[in-house]
Amino acid sequence: MAKFMDVHSGFFGVTQEQLQEAHDRDLAIQDEEGVRYERAWLDPESGKVFCLVTGPSREAVMRIHERAGHATAEVYELPVEV
Amino acid sequence: MAKFMDVHSGFFGVTQEQLQEAHDRDLAIQDEEGVRYERAWLDPESGKVFCLVTGPSREAVMRIHERAGHATAEVYELPVEV
Repeated sequence: MAKFMDVHSGFFGVTQEQLQEAHDRDLAIQDEEGVRYERAWLDPESGKVFCLVTGPSREAVMRIHERAGHATAEVYELPVEV
Repeated sequence: MAKFMDVHSGFFGVTQEQLQEAHDRDLAIQDEEGVRYERAWLDPESGKVFCLVTGPSREAVMRIHERAGHATAEVYELPVEV
């Protein structure tokens, strides 16, 4: 399993409840791709969301987000951690 | 204290040891601004580094990175977490 950071844009003014709702759609289907979302953080001012996730591949992570309705091309594999 | 994600670019092909060395320069001075670096992740292929950090302000986080020799303007405050 590899670790990834995915970055979403355009979440301006999104609330905790709205982010939880969006994230729950990932959690509901993540097992189907062997993906596990660990945490998601939001800056509502810049509209950026960062998700830390483990999974078998970048494509698997992207497929879950796409099916959950918030596709992003910005998925970075993170082989190095300090 | 607030939570922040800072994003650095241009770390292409950087190794674990080199990232640790760069990060140690943050850790050595972080107390002077009341900042605490929790974790840093690197994608050496895209050259992106993501640092999760707590601190009193965006400016304090930026000052530590600037003094450590790896300034970035991309520091996002993260009031929402799921």
